[in-house]
Order: sequence, then structure tokens, then C-alpha cells
Amino acid sequence: MSALRLADAAASAARSQGTTLALLGTGTVGTAFLARLARLQATGKASGLRLVQVANSRRRIHDAGGLDPRIARGQLGDGESQHLDGVAPALCRAGIIIDATASDEVAHRHAAWLAAGFCVVTANKAGTGGVLSQYQAIQAHALRYGDAATVGAGLPLLRSLRELRAGGDRIHGLAGVLSGSLAWLFNHYDGMRPFSALVREARQRGYTEPDPRVDLSGQDVKRKLLILARNAGFELEAEAIRVESLLPPALAEAAPDAVDLALAALDEPLRARFQAAHRVGRKLRLVARLDEPGGARIGLEELAPDDPLATGSGCDNRLAIWSDRYREQPLVVQGPGAGAEVTAAALLDDALRLAGRTG
Amino acid sequence: MSALRLADAAASAARSQGTTLALLGTGTVGTAFLARLARLQATGKASGLRLVQVANSRRRIHDAGGLDPRIARGQLGDGESQHLDGVAPALCRAGIIIDATASDEVAHRHAAWLAAGFCVVTANKAGTGGVLSQYQAIQAHALRYGDAATVGAGLPLLRSLRELRAGGDRIHGLAGVLSGSLAWLFNHYDGMRPFSALVREARQRGYTEPDPRVDLSGQDVKRKLLILARNAGFELEAEAIRVESLLPPALAEAAPDAVDLALAALDEPLRARFQAAHRVGRKLRLVARLDEPGGARIGLEELAPDDPLATGSGCDNRLAIWSDRYREQPLVVQGPGAGAEVTAAALLDDALRLAGRTG
Ligand SMILES: NC(=O)c1ccc[n+]([C@@H]2O[C@H](COP(=O)([O-])OP(=O)(O)OC[C@H]3O[C@@H](n4cnc5c(N)ncnc54)[C@H](OP(=O)(O)O)[C@@H]3O)[C@@H](O)[C@H]2O)c1
Ligand SMILES: NC(=O)c1ccc[n+]([C@@H]2O[C@H](COP(=O)([O-])OP(=O)(O)OC[C@H]3O[C@@H](n4cnc5c(N)ncnc54)[C@H](OP(=O)(O)O)[C@@H]3O)[C@@H](O)[C@H]2O)c1
Repeated sequence: MSALRLADAAASAARSQGTTLALLGTGTVGTAFLARLARLQATGKASGLRLVQVANSRRRIHDAGGLDPRIARGQLGDGESQHLDGVAPALCRAGIIIDATASDEVAHRHAAWLAAGFCVVTANKAGTGGVLSQYQAIQAHALRYGDAATVGAGLPLLRSLRELRAGGDRIHGLAGVLSGSLAWLFNHYDGMRPFSALVREARQRGYTEPDPRVDLSGQDVKRKLLILARNAGFELEAEAIRVESLLPPALAEAAPDAVDLALAALDEPLRARFQAAHRVGRKLRLVARLDEPGGARIGLEELAPDDPLATGSGCDNRLAIWSDRYREQPLVVQGPGAGAEVTAAALLDDALRLAGRTG
Repeated sequence: MSALRLADAAASAARSQGTTLALLGTGTVGTAFLARLARLQATGKASGLRLVQVANSRRRIHDAGGLDPRIARGQLGDGESQHLDGVAPALCRAGIIIDATASDEVAHRHAAWLAAGFCVVTANKAGTGGVLSQYQAIQAHALRYGDAATVGAGLPLLRSLRELRAGGDRIHGLAGVLSGSLAWLFNHYDGMRPFSALVREARQRGYTEPDPRVDLSGQDVKRKLLILARNAGFELEAEAIRVESLLPPALAEAAPDAVDLALAALDEPLRARFQAAHRVGRKLRLVARLDEPGGARIGLEELAPDDPLATGSGCDNRLAIWSDRYREQPLVVQGPGAGAEVTAAALLDDALRLAGRTG
């Protein structure tokens, strides 16, 4: 048998057994997930997983015998119309629902799916980053919830917090650079080149959202800090986090087609902040921070050059954790914290782990 | 009931149930472990663990009903004489043996204890850092082996390697600053003050072993790299690691009482290395490195200032991991990687995790 035929045989064997899987969302992350699942099935290592449903916001396809992840997305056009009520019935007991959407509607279902005995694995921050009562309803089934992809795209952030607490540690504080795009901007900003030009470059490279205000407003970072804080034992509502937006009013209020022009409003205020920091040998970073005296807040900080958050390059995320055992020097985790590839890998890791436990 | 009486009641309840535990070694780490276990029992959170045996190299005590960790060490003097054959019979099925010794003899027993159905939790690097066949015999029972304390004192190093591999990633390379004392020395060395004076200060602060040659020779780092490499999928024997010792012959060969004087032999060679690096804007670090083209090696490297290993402060350990998903920018974990407190905490974490799984 040729290598390809062998791989096909392994993949089809995988499709006829294992824990059932439903994928919601076939955008950037969902597509990368399907490709990674196909690669893993070809090597025979995903035999614990059987993909039985794939859906986007409009259509869904379903096959109890197993869908082929290599072609499932292309088949969606012929599917029936999507409705979230149809997701759970497609799965066997303890089946896994993968949420690769950004939909609040999908996130509102997480707790009910868990309560019905299913596993949920998610890149969607609207679940545990929603209202506190929703977080708590999900948390009641934490052992069947895979959320590594929600913050840091699978970097061991949430996991490290949980393991410290399982070992009896109280978390004293957190400080992080939690946005890849903002990390890149402040790693590259030198006070000379206009900040707006750097924002345009970051958008061109695909580091920011198409409307870079989504990044600059700090709202995405806020949701990540909220999820981290809750998992660290600080059960906050979103309103408890103070956010210093980088957006001057002229930019915040600009109509969508006037955003590019309005970016220039960033240049002067940021140059002034940069120079004030530079004069005292410090570095400017957008930091999300939580501690007991200070509460939770997000904003520009001037960091000493040896601060654990001041270094790092590219789009790296970075989180420092202080706890009973890490009182003086924090535990620091750093690495690529965004991108479809690492996010999809984090989803598949969680699915494999849950399938291994329940399958 | 007073708080103390309540705590006593909780502790005594804990002692009459749960997974049985034997502690070998009551030195710095073993003593910190007992203190931490006592604190956890007082809060009622260690009810899954029952300490039934404590031993040092000479004596052991045993009580199937449960020993009190607050006083066990003091009771050792009245114990019977220690023999390793007596460890397993003291435990119930799936009981946990904690190895807080540095003994090869104890490490040689790990695989047999595991094969007999017990769990082993260890700070002793001589188990998985011994000959390869011993590592493999232990690895066959990896689910019952707790080794977080062997490298990085519980920092998520081994765990991150394993989780990446469980998700299908191949590890491409590792680079680390794996010795707290050497990290401190090179974080503080400025090429002006003699290196030997810095070594004396580190010894005084308790960062180095009483004979600092143990640290400077790189042998401790070698064992850590060996354990990391094996867990990353590179099944090496110790001989495969090339070690550039920092010790000039005059120091390496000095008699124990002449070491202090002979430290001065470090000063000139290190000053020269430092200045060569400094001239090109680089930093000197003792790095343990593994990759496919280069193999495994330990030695002084001149790092660019933005290298993930060049930053950090104090005695922090730091490990960078490159894998299928972390190709360009590595995953980096940094933090305090030595000390009795964090090491004991890592042992107790592993024990709680294993007790939760089997208890
Ligand atoms: N991209 C990253 O680097 C990254 C990193 C970490 C986390 N995340 C998170 O991962 C999630 C997905 O990101 P993405 O970049 O892949 O987004 P995307 O490209 O916009 O894709 C979203 C997908 O969700 C689908 N969808 C929306 N509502 C649905 C519903 N009710 N049922 C089924 N499917 C539904 C959309 O369907 P249509 O195709 O019909 O519109 C689309 O396929 C987001 O929550 C994001 O925050 C992304
Ligand atoms: N200290 C740290 O920061 C650190 C960090 C990570 C890992 N570790 C590792 O943790 C281990 C313990 O370190 P430590 O600093 O606590 O060493 P230590 O102070 O020298 O204590 C070693 C203990 O092991 C006992 N022992 C030796 N052979 C034994 C046997 N056959 N049965 C029972 N007990 C035996 C010794 O007994 P006696 O009292 O009778 O001599 C002593 O109590 C070492 O492997 C070390 O490498 C230490």
C-alpha cells in the first residue's frame, strides 16, 4: 500500500470510532482546526476523535459515521440550515462541542451543553468572559470545559493558575502583555516614526483587526484579563476593570471610512508618553494588571528595563503570576499568543485531553 | 472550638484516611515538605493524603494510623533503623513514595516501586537522570511518576514539553538557564568586580553548594538537561552531552581546603570572555542547549540582548522550547527554579494530583 493509501485507511478507521466531535465556526481558526485534525488522523494519532458535525453561521452538515475534515468545509454549501438546537443531538454521550466562533449566542449555550453531559472546547472568549453568573455556571463543570485557546492561544497561562491553586497557593497578582498586536506595536515603537504608520504596518501584516480600534481600545485585552482574573480566584464582573483606551476622541468617534485618516491623532500623545518614559530609561508597554490593593486595570505603563514584562519580541504574549510560592520573583510564561495555527492546536489539545478522559 | 483546636481536629481526621504517603529524606527539602503538608492538613485541604512513614538515611518511623507532620522529624531519633526494603510494605495499594533524597540507591528503586503499583514523587534527579534504561523503565509508568520537582522546582517545564507532545508536536529544540546560582552569577557579573568575589558572595547567600565547584563544573545542569531532553523525545545517555566546565585546571584540581584561594583562577579567563562579548553588545550566560544539528551541549554563550535567555533577574531559571507550533518564537517559561520552599511545593502538588487520580 502506498503511504497515501495507508494514511487514507488510518483516517477512515479514525472516522468510524472515538469520541464524537461537532465543530462550530469555519473561519480562520475553524479552518486551521480542520487541517490539523486531518493531519493528526493521517498519522493515526487522532483515533480517539470522530468529527460528526461541522457548521458555520448559515449551514451545517452531519454524518454519524464521521466526516472527512479535509473536505468538510467544501461540503457545507450543500448542508441544511444551521440552528444551535441541532448541535447536541448529533453527538454521543460525552461528545465534544468545539466553539470556534466569536458568537455570544453560541457562548450562552456552553453551560447548558455542559449540564447535559457534553464537553465544550472553545476559542470563544464570550463564555467565561461574559457575565459572572455565566462563568460560574460553566465553572461548575470545569473538568469538561477546554478553554486553553481563549487566552494566550494555548500558552500555559490558565493551566498554570489552576495548578498553583490546586496545590494550595493563593494568587496574589497578575501582570501581562495580552495582545499580540499591541505587543508588536510597543516593541517596535521608537518615538521617531509616527505611531500611526506603525499601526498601518501592523494592520497590513494581519496583526490587528481590520479596524485597528478594536485592538487599540483595550476591549479584547479586557476580556482576557477578566478570564484570567476569574481563574485566579478573583470573581470580577467586567465593569470592575478600569481600561485606559489608547484612542483619542477624534479616532474613537471617526466613521469607519475615516479611521485611516484619523489614526494620525495617535501620534502626538504617544510621542509625548514615549519620550517621558525614555527620559527616565523606561519602556512603554500596554499592561493588564491585577492585584489586591490596586484592583484590575489596563493601560500604558512605564516599565524598568529589567521588568519581566519589558522584554520579549514580535507579537509575543507574556504573563507574570505572583502567588504564595512566587512572592518575590513571579512565574513568567511568554510566547506566541495569537494566530490561527496555535489557536487551532490549543483546541485540538483540549479535545484530545477530554476524549482521553471520557472516551 | 478555638481555631487551633479546629485545625487539630481537621489534621487528625486527615490522618485517619486518604492515600498513604512515605517520605524519604528529611533534609532541607523533606523538612519543608513536612511543614507544607502540616499547613495544608490544618486547612483541611490535604485530606486525601495520610503520612504513614518518614525516614532519613539512618532511621525510620511508621504509623498506619497516620503520623503528624509537625512532629514526625523529631520522633525519628526513636525510630527503627532504615532499610529501603521496608518502604513499600508500609503503604496501601497505590500509595505514594516521596523521594526527597539525593541518593542513587533510592533512585534505583523507583522503577521497581512503580512496577509494583505504587506512585513515586521525586526531587531526586538520579531517577530519570540516570542511565537511559532506568529512565525508560520509569517512563513505562509515567502516569504514576511525579517529577515536577526534578527540574525547575515545579516550574511548568517538563509539563509543557509533555503537553506539546501529547498534542502531536515534535520538539525541535531547547535552550535554558537551568542553574539558579549560575544565573545569579552571570546576571551580576559586570567584568569589573573579580568573578571570584561574586562566587564568594553567592556561596555566602546560600545560592551555591558549599563547594561552589559543584555548580561551576556544569554537572548539575547536565543532569537537568538530560531529563529535559529525554522528556522532549531525545533519548540520550549522559555521555552525549558536551559540557564546557567553567573550572580552570588549578581550581578543578585544588584540595577542598584550598578551593577558596584557587577561585582567583576564574578571574582572568572570565574577564576576557566578558569583555569580548561586551565589545559586540552581547551578554554572557551559561546556557544548556539541545537541537538536532548541534546535539546537546552546555557552555558559556554570548547572547544578543533580545535573546529570550539574556534577560531575567536574580536566580531565575529560564527555558525556551521550539516545536512544530513554536517554530519562530519559542515558548518561554521563567521563574524561581530552586529553593526548598518551591521544591517542596512541587512535591506536594504532584502527590495531591496522584492521590486525586488514584484515591
Ligand atoms: N484568530 C486568532 O488568532 C484567534 C486567537 C485566539 C482566539 N480566537 C477566537 O477564536 C474565535 C474564532 O476566530 P476566527 O478568527 O476564526 O473568526 P472568524 O474567521 O470570524 O470565524 C468565525 C466563524 O464562526 C461562525 N459562526 C458564527 N455564528 C455561528 C453559529 N451560530 N453557529 C456556527 N457557526 C457560527 C462564522 O460563520 P460564517 O462563516 O457563516 O460567518 C465563522 O465561520 C473567536 O472567538 C476569536 O476571538 C482567535
Ligand atoms: N534544595 C533545593 O533547592 C533543591 C531543588 C530541587 C531539587 N532538589 C533535590 O532534592 C533532593 C533533596 O535535597 P536537600 O537539599 O533536601 O538534600 P539534603 O538536605 O542533603 O537531604 C537529603 C536527605 O536524604 C536523606 N537520605 C539519604 N539516603 C536516604 C535513604 N536511603 N533513605 C532515606 N533517606 C535518605 C538524608 O538523610 P540524613 O539526614 O540521614 O543524611 C537527608 O535527610 C536532592 O535530590 C536535591 O538535588 C533540591
